[in-house]
Amino acid sequence: MTEAAMERTQDNPIFESDFVIEMVRQMRAVDTYGTYDNWPAARILEPFVLTREKKREIPVIGDPDEITLSRVKAFYNAIAALIEKECGLMAVPMLNLTHEGFGRAIITVGKLVVMDRTLRDVHRFGYDSLSRMKDDADKLLSVALEIIGEHSAVAGM
Amino acid sequence: MTEAAMERTQDNPIFESDFVIEMVRQMRAVDTYGTYDNWPAARILEPFVLTREKKREIPVIGDPDEITLSRVKAFYNAIAALIEKECGLMAVPMLNLTHEGFGRAIITVGKLVVMDRTLRDVHRFGYDSLSRMKDDADKLLSVALEIIGEHSAVAGM
Repeated sequence: MTEAAMERTQDNPIFESDFVIEMVRQMRAVDTYGTYDNWPAARILEPFVLTREKKREIPVIGDPDEITLSRVKAFYNAIAALIEKECGLMAVPMLNLTHEGFGRAIITVGKLVVMDRTLRDVHRFGYDSLSRMKDDADKLLSVALEIIGEHSAVAGM
Repeated sequence: MTEAAMERTQDNPIFESDFVIEMVRQMRAVDTYGTYDNWPAARILEPFVLTREKKREIPVIGDPDEITLSRVKAFYNAIAALIEKECGLMAVPMLNLTHEGFGRAIITVGKLVVMDRTLRDVHRFGYDSLSRMKDDADKLLSVALEIIGEHSAVAGM
């Protein structure tokens, strides 16, 4: 099995992680017509995995469509949900994109900006593998929790 | 002369205030075709004044158009510019609206949220008079500077 194929099997412990569980929850939340109802987690999250070959097929310049945008939102919503779960304070994500897919994503807790990221080429949003996506999320989460710990007064405002 | 008419004359000291000067600058910045080049400040800022009668003519429910949105942006950009001028740190405005005109406007300085406002009915954005608009701006500015003073470490991050 290739690495990618192995990752897709449900036995992969990554599907037990808080992040992936939350991601699946976020994706199901925007699934108005219940298309994903009988889908396993691996299939729901498959569009987030953009291997190098897949990425090469997408034009360098392009406008993100609604489906891609909903994925970007799901990702930052999931991180906000995890921050909230860890620190017990409300975490609010805010995404601001031009129609060309450039912009900024932030997450605030109280009056504290706990995550601040410049986005570009959002129409090619995706990770090499699910575990890469989880690594990125874990990094954002740990930095956010560190900032909250250091400035808890501002986070509690 | 009515209060509104008096306000429109250029002798009004409000046109010397930092806020109004900055507002005019912001409006001129988005005036791609130079339409405002020969307009006095009073005329450029006239669309921001929505008297009760004018407001009543606008439907309660409606989608904000691009021109109204550019006015809302100009207002919060001006406040961010004034915050920056006062505290010497970069202030970044961020506006997030649904197409129905509901949303959130924030201004961040470093990792500190110095202004956070929920917006609604943006298609009816406007103030009773210019001085009301300036009052609102002054209030936002002084609150923001107070927060920055209290949490200067976070604002400097």
